[in-house]
Amino acid sequence: MTDVNGSLELIKRGTEEVLPEELLIKKLQRGNPLKIKAGFDPTAPDLHLGHTVLINKLRQFQELGHEVIFLIGDFTGMIGDPTGKSATRPPLTREEVVENAKTYEHQIFKILDPSRTTVLFNSSWMGEMSAVDLIQLAAKHTVARMLERDDFNKRYTGGQPIAVHEFLYPLIQGYDSVVLKADVELGGTDQKFNLLVGRQLQEAYQQEPQVVVTLPILEGLDGVQKMSKSLNNYIGITDAPEEMFGKIMSVSDDLMWRYFELLSFRPMAEIDSWRREVEQGANPRDVKVRLAEELVERFHSRGDAVKANEAFVARFQKGQMPDEMAEMDLNAPDGGYPIANLLKDAGLVKSTSEAMRLIKQGAVKIDGERLSDHAHLAIAGTTCIYQVGKRRFARIRVQ
Amino acid sequence: MTDVNGSLELIKRGTEEVLPEELLIKKLQRGNPLKIKAGFDPTAPDLHLGHTVLINKLRQFQELGHEVIFLIGDFTGMIGDPTGKSATRPPLTREEVVENAKTYEHQIFKILDPSRTTVLFNSSWMGEMSAVDLIQLAAKHTVARMLERDDFNKRYTGGQPIAVHEFLYPLIQGYDSVVLKADVELGGTDQKFNLLVGRQLQEAYQQEPQVVVTLPILEGLDGVQKMSKSLNNYIGITDAPEEMFGKIMSVSDDLMWRYFELLSFRPMAEIDSWRREVEQGANPRDVKVRLAEELVERFHSRGDAVKANEAFVARFQKGQMPDEMAEMDLNAPDGGYPIANLLKDAGLVKSTSEAMRLIKQGAVKIDGERLSDHAHLAIAGTTCIYQVGKRRFARIRVQ
Repeated sequence: MTDVNGSLELIKRGTEEVLPEELLIKKLQRGNPLKIKAGFDPTAPDLHLGHTVLINKLRQFQELGHEVIFLIGDFTGMIGDPTGKSATRPPLTREEVVENAKTYEHQIFKILDPSRTTVLFNSSWMGEMSAVDLIQLAAKHTVARMLERDDFNKRYTGGQPIAVHEFLYPLIQGYDSVVLKADVELGGTDQKFNLLVGRQLQEAYQQEPQVVVTLPILEGLDGVQKMSKSLNNYIGITDAPEEMFGKIMSVSDDLMWRYFELLSFRPMAEIDSWRREVEQGANPRDVKVRLAEELVERFHSRGDAVKANEAFVARFQKGQMPDEMAEMDLNAPDGGYPIANLLKDAGLVKSTSEAMRLIKQGAVKIDGERLSDHAHLAIAGTTCIYQVGKRRFARIRVQ
Repeated sequence: MTDVNGSLELIKRGTEEVLPEELLIKKLQRGNPLKIKAGFDPTAPDLHLGHTVLINKLRQFQELGHEVIFLIGDFTGMIGDPTGKSATRPPLTREEVVENAKTYEHQIFKILDPSRTTVLFNSSWMGEMSAVDLIQLAAKHTVARMLERDDFNKRYTGGQPIAVHEFLYPLIQGYDSVVLKADVELGGTDQKFNLLVGRQLQEAYQQEPQVVVTLPILEGLDGVQKMSKSLNNYIGITDAPEEMFGKIMSVSDDLMWRYFELLSFRPMAEIDSWRREVEQGANPRDVKVRLAEELVERFHSRGDAVKANEAFVARFQKGQMPDEMAEMDLNAPDGGYPIANLLKDAGLVKSTSEAMRLIKQGAVKIDGERLSDHAHLAIAGTTCIYQVGKRRFARIRVQ
């Protein structure tokens, strides 16, 4: 805990902003365990690797000796949608909240140290709050500053309604920091405004304000859009070992380095040395295997990681792929390369209709795995071995 | 209660707006007693005639058989100034609120019928309200509509801060109407926005909305600025009978008709007939005496009114004023006619310095009353008898 520079370097790894850095240094220099707050939605406890960027950062704080407060913002969830406009947001019951919290714990303790983690619910204090208290809280912020928040500003100037209670939610989130006397709060970049409200309220309540640490949004498997379930470009932390391994091996060589920075716990110095090796000609696939193994081990076990790796290699060997084969670069159209066109352009089939027919017959494989989806899109930045029948192979880099 | 047209005429007398009039007619046609709400500040129970414009209207509703809810808005007063900026607005204690309410009752029951008046405190329900309830209330209004309120709009566009809790106060005032199931709410024109919020919230809570009745701001003795203590142009309802009588007699002949409409309970038909008489040459002073007597009787007694009138007349007689004297019209400069200039322009003194000296000696009287303030300004629209020494008189109309 005394190596402030080392701590600072680890804390800053992969972050967007640390506000203000001098205050973080001051807090670190005191040598006491800090209270690290992060708020979580009470409704969506099915985590993917995108969510773990923030949880990984909490883990790093724990490794430095600090205390994590995993705060479930159930208070607003238990109110539901008070405008009554959204039938799809019924209020959560106490039981649902507790059940969701268990699901969270089951997942986060694959990353976090339970002995340095306190799971709390903000309904504990907000549920007791009176209208008077809330009025006094609301007096500590101005309408003009609320309207500076990006989304509020867009809605106000665009004539979209903002219900008055929406101005109260950032104040409640900030007040949580007052109650918890948080030293540091973590959040996505989209949370920056709310995290800063927390700082301001702590000052209004005569506390030393928290340091705000914002983390980037992780890109999904496509390397472009943010990782999300609805875009189906995600790696769920409960994905089976072989599926998780295969998905990681499918990311582009560029995206691999981003994933290393945000998802791996290997020291950056080590990762940087591998990067230099790849730049000097080493096969990026061999480095990517290390990331895949680390993540499968984290969410499953060392044994699972080894097995997943073996299965991945075996798929290639079973396919009896030749050591030497045609290699080519193809430029993908915007939005991805339709597989039938890719096979035709690579000369592996004569027409897209032949490609379709062969896919239907199960005669097409990608990296040794049989392809069933004839609408499959090859993504720019990936390198895979495409196989048609028993003899036609090509290693194609899609650009 | 069945004469809806007659009721409507009485209710509309002197009002600014009745919104919407059709709904008021509908409510009147049902023939049941209506709940008439008016909110009052818990801090300022020292009433002047300006305040009674609204209370008179409540009284008229009572005469039509309706129930008045005299609502003391003590909830926000008991919070004080939560921004902590104003040291002059400490929170009111429960005892102070009760004490102020007694002072109110003592005054308002000179106008209102206690048997048809319920005095309530909004802290009764607001003090019990939880933060959750307040959030749900705040969800029923939008930021954009709040910013349409004149004063909010001016402050927002002018860069003056509006604290977020200020958006909650109109909602609380409106929610009072929901709790009370008010049929009609009365307020000054400056309250129109808040009264309309009440309508909107009642609809959100599935109630028939209240009718909003706004009343004008009464001009003070100068006939220009609103009656207020700080401008010292007011008639307090606890003013002594002779003082009250004299102040009313001092208002301009134009303002007299305004006061008749808003302060007298005489039928408008009768007042209109007096107006026609004055237009045909009758002395407006004789009509003004009727107003002065009515108001002194209301706030004191019939006997006091008669005595005050006699004393007023006696002052003129004691002054041994001649029946015949010079009459003239003088044009006042903007802002009023300095007394020294007026006396000089009327030929009653030779110079303003002589006027000053005579005022100092107590040798100048206005309407028989000795003038001590040498900076006195004669106001446009007034007609008074100016007297210098024992023999110089003039009846001067200042225009």
